Amino acid sequence: MQVTKAVITAASPSQHGLPLQHLVDRHGTHKTALQMTVEEAVDAGVEQIGIVIRPGDAEAYGQAVGEHRSRITFVEQDNPRGYGDAILRARDFVAGEPFLHLVGDHLYISDAANSCAKQLVDIAMNEKCAVSAVQPTRENKLPYFGTVGANRIAGRHDLFQIERMIEKPTPTQAEQDLVVAGLRSGYYLCLFGMHVLTPAVMDVLYELLQANRNGTSVTLTDALTLLAQRERMLAYETDGRRFNIGEKYGLLVAQLAVALTGGDRDEILTELVELLASQPSPAAIR
Amino acid sequence: MQVTKAVITAASPSQHGLPLQHLVDRHGTHKTALQMTVEEAVDAGVEQIGIVIRPGDAEAYGQAVGEHRSRITFVEQDNPRGYGDAILRARDFVAGEPFLHLVGDHLYISDAANSCAKQLVDIAMNEKCAVSAVQPTRENKLPYFGTVGANRIAGRHDLFQIERMIEKPTPTQAEQDLVVAGLRSGYYLCLFGMHVLTPAVMDVLYELLQANRNGTSVTLTDALTLLAQRERMLAYETDGRRFNIGEKYGLLVAQLAVALTGGDRDEILTELVELLASQPSPAAIR
Repeated sequence: MQVTKAVITAASPSQHGLPLQHLVDRHGTHKTALQMTVEEAVDAGVEQIGIVIRPGDAEAYGQAVGEHRSRITFVEQDNPRGYGDAILRARDFVAGEPFLHLVGDHLYISDAANSCAKQLVDIAMNEKCAVSAVQPTRENKLPYFGTVGANRIAGRHDLFQIERMIEKPTPTQAEQDLVVAGLRSGYYLCLFGMHVLTPAVMDVLYELLQANRNGTSVTLTDALTLLAQRERMLAYETDGRRFNIGEKYGLLVAQLAVALTGGDRDEILTELVELLASQPSPAAIR
Repeated sequence: MQVTKAVITAASPSQHGLPLQHLVDRHGTHKTALQMTVEEAVDAGVEQIGIVIRPGDAEAYGQAVGEHRSRITFVEQDNPRGYGDAILRARDFVAGEPFLHLVGDHLYISDAANSCAKQLVDIAMNEKCAVSAVQPTRENKLPYFGTVGANRIAGRHDLFQIERMIEKPTPTQAEQDLVVAGLRSGYYLCLFGMHVLTPAVMDVLYELLQANRNGTSVTLTDALTLLAQRERMLAYETDGRRFNIGEKYGLLVAQLAVALTGGDRDEILTELVELLASQPSPAAIR
C-alpha cells in the first residue's frame, strides 16, 4: 500500500478563516495554519492534496498554502452538510486510492523524530490497512472526541484492532463498550483527527448519506464504525500531541506548544515571565 | 474640538492578513484583530472610520469588522508608497476634521478604567490640539520606534509639549536631542501607534510627498516633526500597553496579555502550567 494522496477538510462554517491564521513554526518561520497542515502531509510522502472548502475560499486558501500550491486540488462543498459529506466530496480526487486524512482545524506536534502523519503513514503501509491515529485521553474529555473500543495487538504497545467507535460517548457508554485493556484507569483511546483510510470509506459514506438524506448529518465516526466491520482497521497511538485551534484559546495554546518545542523556547519563556511580571495584579484590574 | 472620525492604516504589504487574525478579547469573545481596533475607536466616541487597505482587501476586511461595518469607509492605497502616503489617502474621508489615528498592526490594553484611545481623545478634546500617545521605553527598544523630545507640562505627570521627533533614533541621537526631564534614566518617550491629529497633518503630508516624489517614502514621524513646528502638539503618556502583532511572536504575546488581563486569567494560567508540565524536556527534543 502506498499513500500518495491526502484529503484535508476545511469547509465547516464554524472553522471559517482558521486555515488563514498566522503561526510561527518550531523553526521560527511564519506560516499559516493551512500551510502547516499541508506540510504535515507532504512530510509524510504525500504528493497530491485535496482540500475541501466552502465555495469562494479557493483564492485566499490558495495564497495561504505557500510553496506547495501546485500539489493542491480544491474541492468545494456547496452546502454545509456535515463532516461525512465533506469527505465524500473528495471521492473523485481520491479515485480509488488510499489516502491520508487530516482535519483543517488541528495542529500536530510530534514528540518523536518523525512527524505524526509520517508515523501513521508508515504503520498503514506496513500493515496494509486503514489506521486511525488515537491518543489516550482522560474520561472528562470524552464529550469532545470520537472514541475507539479496541484490542491491543499482541506484542505491540502502540497498535490496536478497532472493534467499535462512538462519537462523543457518555462516561457510561465508554465504561461499557470502550474500555481498552492496558490503558491507565479512566483513560480511553480518542481520535487524534488524523487517519489513513482505504477508498472503501467513500462507499460507506455514500451508503450512509443516501440512507440518511433527510436526517442529521453523517459523521466520519459513523462511517468508520461500519468500515471496521467490513475490513481490518487499526488504531495507532501516535507519539505526539494534537491541538484543536478552533477551541476558544486553541490558537494560543497551539502556538505556545509549538514555540516551547522549538528553537525559540528560551525567548518565549522570557516573554512569558516578563508578561506575568508586567501584568497588573487582578486586584488592580477589578 | 470633537473627534468623530478615525483613520486606521492597514495597507502595508508586510502586515497583510494581520487584521484578519483571530483573537479572544478580555471578555472571552472571539474577534478579529481589525474588529478589536475598530472597537477601540468606537469606544472613544468615534462615529466614522476610514480604513486604508490594499486593493482587493475590502470584502474580507469588511467581513472581519463585525457589527460596526456600517461605520466603515474603505480607502485603497493603490501602490505601497509608505506610511505617510497611506494616511494621505484618507484626506477626503477626513474632510478637514480632526481624527483619531490607529495603526492596524497594533493592539492596545488599557490598565485604567477607560480604553487607551478614550484616554487620548479626552486629552485632545480638553487641550484642543493634536496629541500623540507615548510610552516611556527602554533605550534598547529605540530601533523600533519613533521617539519624541518634549518638555513636561507644568503640574501634569502624563502630558508633554512635543519639541521634536526622530524615527528610530540611534542611542547617541536620543541622548543628545530626546532626553525628557523626569523620566527614569535610559528611558525615552516612544510613540504608542495612536494619535489624535488635526487636519493640518494632511497638508504637511502632501507637501512632504510632493517634495519627495522620487525619494524614499515619507513617514508619519517626518510629518509630525513639521506639524509640531507649526502648531501646538502634545504627547500623552497613556495608561496602558501596546502590542505590535506584526512582530515574530506578536500575536502570541498580545493574546496572552489580553487573556491574562481578562476574566479567563485563571484558565490561561492553568493551561500554561499544564503545557509546561506536558512538554518534553529540551534534552528529549534534541
